Amino acid sequence: MIKIGIVGYGNLGKGVESAVINSKDMELIGIFTRRNPRDLVVQSDTKVYALDDAFNMKDEIDVMVMCGGSANDLLDQTPAFAKHFNVIDSFDTHARIPEHFANVDAASQIEKTVSIISVGWDPGLFSVQRLYGQAVLPYGNDYTFWGKGVSQGHSDAIRRIEGVVDARQYTIPVEAALASVRNNEDPVLDTRQKHTRECYVVIEDGADAKQIEDAIVNMPNYFADYDTTVHFISMEELQRDHAGIPHGGVVFRSGKTGMNLDTHQLIEYKLELDSNPEFTASVLVAYARAAYRLHKDGVYGCKTVFDIAPGLLHEQDGETLRKHLL
Amino acid sequence: MIKIGIVGYGNLGKGVESAVINSKDMELIGIFTRRNPRDLVVQSDTKVYALDDAFNMKDEIDVMVMCGGSANDLLDQTPAFAKHFNVIDSFDTHARIPEHFANVDAASQIEKTVSIISVGWDPGLFSVQRLYGQAVLPYGNDYTFWGKGVSQGHSDAIRRIEGVVDARQYTIPVEAALASVRNNEDPVLDTRQKHTRECYVVIEDGADAKQIEDAIVNMPNYFADYDTTVHFISMEELQRDHAGIPHGGVVFRSGKTGMNLDTHQLIEYKLELDSNPEFTASVLVAYARAAYRLHKDGVYGCKTVFDIAPGLLHEQDGETLRKHLL
Repeated sequence: MIKIGIVGYGNLGKGVESAVINSKDMELIGIFTRRNPRDLVVQSDTKVYALDDAFNMKDEIDVMVMCGGSANDLLDQTPAFAKHFNVIDSFDTHARIPEHFANVDAASQIEKTVSIISVGWDPGLFSVQRLYGQAVLPYGNDYTFWGKGVSQGHSDAIRRIEGVVDARQYTIPVEAALASVRNNEDPVLDTRQKHTRECYVVIEDGADAKQIEDAIVNMPNYFADYDTTVHFISMEELQRDHAGIPHGGVVFRSGKTGMNLDTHQLIEYKLELDSNPEFTASVLVAYARAAYRLHKDGVYGCKTVFDIAPGLLHEQDGETLRKHLL
Repeated sequence: MIKIGIVGYGNLGKGVESAVINSKDMELIGIFTRRNPRDLVVQSDTKVYALDDAFNMKDEIDVMVMCGGSANDLLDQTPAFAKHFNVIDSFDTHARIPEHFANVDAASQIEKTVSIISVGWDPGLFSVQRLYGQAVLPYGNDYTFWGKGVSQGHSDAIRRIEGVVDARQYTIPVEAALASVRNNEDPVLDTRQKHTRECYVVIEDGADAKQIEDAIVNMPNYFADYDTTVHFISMEELQRDHAGIPHGGVVFRSGKTGMNLDTHQLIEYKLELDSNPEFTASVLVAYARAAYRLHKDGVYGCKTVFDIAPGLLHEQDGETLRKHLL
């Protein structure tokens, strides 16, 4: 059994908890939190510890799954834990991946641990698909579409507007753009042509709806470059109709082969996720299995999904996989 | 530059020729054939050699791409070449993969070469998708659909019927079955519910069309378990409308997550290939790059797509990939 620890217990930590419990070759040793462990209500009978207790349990845990956020937690936490544990994280601030990789790699040298960063679906499985697509079809175009799904960052941005009580933002791919790629038209698409944004917003009594709508649709970086629709709804409606955290998207590689590069080949990879955090968690747990195996083989240092052979992710051994899955 | 040789020059060999020529980090050293090299007209200015000449050119070739057929060539040829060369093949007789793996692995021990077998899209990229799907979503169902595309084996089976001059058989996924999977119904599908078969057949003057149609639709293993449509057409029509070798298909993983396994998650991977052999060839060439790199690192023995980290397939190095593709 692979012994797993969870650091951080938000939606992602809960997803890892259920994924580990549903894995036949894994055992969940503990959940580590910055909150008061006594106050944390978890979904299973897993023991809850204070964060710092982890460092006294090094021998009891094979892989630590880091479930904090990219903005505030992982840049510090992942290197701190990588010094002593094999770790997996879902660091998703694309621009800072090289810096985070270097820090985690340095930390992993100390006790020769394996760390795999930026695991999930984007970065993660979508990145892997972009890579396979480019490697197999070096002449071509990449397209990544996100949604339909809830963007946490954009929902938060709306919540920061004065007069807003709560909000949910959906990112939605433009159907015409998807159709054009599928129709082998190799379109050149600007930001507005790829996605629309739909916002469900609860405002305070007496707040100026028109002013809030203007503040949303014109918000630089977040909404100004998109066609954005704003719906004002009640808190009851928000809780009833928008409680889920669905997401997904599509990665395409549209390429050409042949002596004259005139044969068209299209690869499409699509995710439809009823729960974004549970799916991300499931990916993290599969890569935790890989980290455990690599560490047993004496490998160490920081890795990404690009460095992990697919066979390392699956519970079954190579012979069984070749026989039944190849 | 990675120095590549091609063994066998049918459609697949031609596809590898163009893929290597269109790869910036590769050089095509020679095409090796059982035919008289002087009679072989190739698409490029690549030198053509007799098959046995290959063994005098061991130092000139980094990876040999085996382009023979699974039925008659690869079971013998791949081990014979693996004794002296890093090799890639597209062996696709699923039931005999374990035996072939063992033979090629033994051959690869002799001079410590790297061999990667069963590379292409099924087995190959589809296998990889099945594996990622199961690893990430251990509770769920797999679905693989093939087509719309030409099945060489089924076309050949029709051609063997007396009175048939030529034939092209298309395998077509049943739309209702695809829709059911996409609609999260987790259907249980029998053979007939998954695919239909459509045949375009040219017959001899005076041959009995009704009798030939009966022979096709009732043919055991090939057609009896499917809804099969037979169209009799002229040779001109066959050559005009059915000259291409398109193929493709869809791999789904429909899985459940969460403490009670009641959250639905759907992964769909779809290929739409205007040329099956050119795409298969492109996959072979990407894995040739991986074989070269593994051999340089001192790795040896037989591998499959399950053992190859995605990053090994791409021309760019790890740092560049992390920066731009993750």
